[in-house]
Amino acid sequence: MVIRQQQSAADFDVHEYMQRIGRQARTASIALGRADTSNKDRALLAIATAIETAEQNLLVANARDMEQGGAHELDEALLDRLALNRDRIGAMAEGLRQIAALRDPVGEITDLNFRPSGIQVGKMRVPLGVVGIIYESRPNVTADAAGLCLKSGNATILRGGSEALHSNQAIAHCIRSGLAGAGLPENAVQVIETSDRAAVGELVRMQEYVDVIVPRGGKGLIERVARESLIPVIKHLHGVCHVYIDEHADHDKAVAIAFNAKTQRYGTCNTMETLLLARSVAKSILERLAPMYQEQGVELRGCPSACSLVGGMKAAVEDDWDTEYLAPILAVRVVDDFDAALQHIREHGSNHTDAIVTEDYTRARRFLREVDSSSVMVNASTRFADGFEYGLGAEIGISTDKIHARGPVGLEGLTSQKFIVLGDGQIRQ
Amino acid sequence: MVIRQQQSAADFDVHEYMQRIGRQARTASIALGRADTSNKDRALLAIATAIETAEQNLLVANARDMEQGGAHELDEALLDRLALNRDRIGAMAEGLRQIAALRDPVGEITDLNFRPSGIQVGKMRVPLGVVGIIYESRPNVTADAAGLCLKSGNATILRGGSEALHSNQAIAHCIRSGLAGAGLPENAVQVIETSDRAAVGELVRMQEYVDVIVPRGGKGLIERVARESLIPVIKHLHGVCHVYIDEHADHDKAVAIAFNAKTQRYGTCNTMETLLLARSVAKSILERLAPMYQEQGVELRGCPSACSLVGGMKAAVEDDWDTEYLAPILAVRVVDDFDAALQHIREHGSNHTDAIVTEDYTRARRFLREVDSSSVMVNASTRFADGFEYGLGAEIGISTDKIHARGPVGLEGLTSQKFIVLGDGQIRQ
Repeated sequence: MVIRQQQSAADFDVHEYMQRIGRQARTASIALGRADTSNKDRALLAIATAIETAEQNLLVANARDMEQGGAHELDEALLDRLALNRDRIGAMAEGLRQIAALRDPVGEITDLNFRPSGIQVGKMRVPLGVVGIIYESRPNVTADAAGLCLKSGNATILRGGSEALHSNQAIAHCIRSGLAGAGLPENAVQVIETSDRAAVGELVRMQEYVDVIVPRGGKGLIERVARESLIPVIKHLHGVCHVYIDEHADHDKAVAIAFNAKTQRYGTCNTMETLLLARSVAKSILERLAPMYQEQGVELRGCPSACSLVGGMKAAVEDDWDTEYLAPILAVRVVDDFDAALQHIREHGSNHTDAIVTEDYTRARRFLREVDSSSVMVNASTRFADGFEYGLGAEIGISTDKIHARGPVGLEGLTSQKFIVLGDGQIRQ
Repeated sequence: MVIRQQQSAADFDVHEYMQRIGRQARTASIALGRADTSNKDRALLAIATAIETAEQNLLVANARDMEQGGAHELDEALLDRLALNRDRIGAMAEGLRQIAALRDPVGEITDLNFRPSGIQVGKMRVPLGVVGIIYESRPNVTADAAGLCLKSGNATILRGGSEALHSNQAIAHCIRSGLAGAGLPENAVQVIETSDRAAVGELVRMQEYVDVIVPRGGKGLIERVARESLIPVIKHLHGVCHVYIDEHADHDKAVAIAFNAKTQRYGTCNTMETLLLARSVAKSILERLAPMYQEQGVELRGCPSACSLVGGMKAAVEDDWDTEYLAPILAVRVVDDFDAALQHIREHGSNHTDAIVTEDYTRARRFLREVDSSSVMVNASTRFADGFEYGLGAEIGISTDKIHARGPVGLEGLTSQKFIVLGDGQIRQ
């Protein structure tokens, strides 16, 4: 980047720069794909140590970003995401150590069976190759994403927000030293060191060098990447998550889950945004829940029926059913029955996470089967939709796509399975 | 289509037509996604019977296509793919009965485990939703693809080549009658009944209605679809398959496999196109193999070393290492050692199917791990890379992609897995 900044814009060929990054990533991915688990883990631990050791450098680099961010009048929320401090640096290092402790998915052979021809056919789990990650201002993504890709045997090209450039470069420096210390190619993790926005356009078109793109950030970024990319994208669009309280719900569980799903954290994609209630239980549940929400400062926006049952609700408009608030606001709708709840989720949901609260066996079973979301739950808070809670370890994101990986994407989602055939000279008849 | 042809081109709005097809498919996919296995199997068997019963209609419709094809001077190979006869019609029906006999992948729950929080987390296999299939002249694809999608709970939009339109319509008629007989929505399988080429462009951009696109046909078609599609594509580009005969190969196995992999069928994607030989065994193997190939009429194109070892070979040019001949032509290259063979496959392979012949344990293990192809084999003919041989039943194609499905794509490749969570009132702490 030092060189980049010294060059005039006219001298700098972003296409050529990105092609070089791509070629280097592809070359590094070959060595990384066959690296031993112990090598990869050694690198992860070395990076963790390097990050802790470089704490002071990271803080200085981050201070430069924060200063420039202040000068550019970035908003408070963005500056908060951008900020590093001792705790956040410690958490990055700890995250890498946790990734090192996870089981290595690469090379796992499953379903190896003899066929009538005499060959044995099975599947072997293998890295995808090169993963391109496009993200916004959080510098910790640099370490998290690099760590997950490294453990799963993938080379990574990281393109963070330009406002975090110095922080990301400082983290990248730690990553490179950790890789080199473990005898792995330094180009296994590359941070794009130009703020030229054309770099993203180049990245998503390098099919020859990049196998999958993971955009992380706001909906605008993700939609742009999905639209422009010629490479498969693992993406998370948005989370309009529902809890449906069925006629046969246990009321205590219903109240606890609906309260937790909204208020445990407001800004996460698995937070409930719309509460659906069966007509027959709506009044008694809302009489308990509404005061709890209101005490917490949650604004309730109800359908006419909901508004008529308890006081203090605003009238919801049509848009409310489709909105991911990421804020202390909750849409509330009374539905006639179970099928109307399914219908609402089908029309307004985002295929992310939806839950039913019921003691009815058949409805639980139908909900699990018929709701087409990446996580479908019975009698549990939507807030559980998370890689750690599911036992995957860290996650690179939560996919709302249908192909490849759905829901929290951990190490396995960064791999694929190839067929292996073991024979003893068999030929096809 | 009758209506379409009667309308003037100006009256026909391909966008509106495709949008309607899409909406109908999405609606049908909901019912199909929750259909019982027995319902789907009943429909498959009914379609098989309908196809056999309609044999005469199919032959008449096909004769119209063949006649028009002849008038348009389509080439022989294409006319052969287009042609239906009693055997091919019988094979279509039989294929559907085989699909009915396969295990239903939908709803399978795996890895259901308790987590420390008390929730149970598992995965449920679910249909992708709506599959768009774009293919060329083979009418049997209409029945095969519809059958596989139906069994896996997906609605299908089929866009066959315009030269097969009457045949495809006649088959579609049988499919609809079978679906209706089993109480499933007729729109679960729709055949696009316009030869307007803009229909393909519309299909690959209907993200709202279509979840995955499967192009089947020549490389030109597949590249175009992959380039234009805004929807994930499961694709097969080409198969430049290798057999590498290692220094430690059993010579009898090597000769049998190399002969079979080339000559058992020439036109298939899993046919060997390049034979690699370790220098130390090249002479003795080629002295046996070359006459066998030559007797079979296979043209050999060798590197200088290969040409110097046995007579009757042409000199290969650089392009030969990258060519999928689909014909009785074989490129032959002598390599210095195992690593040079891996290097050649990495540079010239198409990530389809590659095999090593060796008795060396460590090399077999390294080949399996390091060759990045959808099927990697030890001591077996590349011709085994096939859904039937692998025990998947029928296949919708062989994917050379890395994400989602690699290699032969059967019913499982037409499904995805969502997370399910079973709780007892758990909330997130």
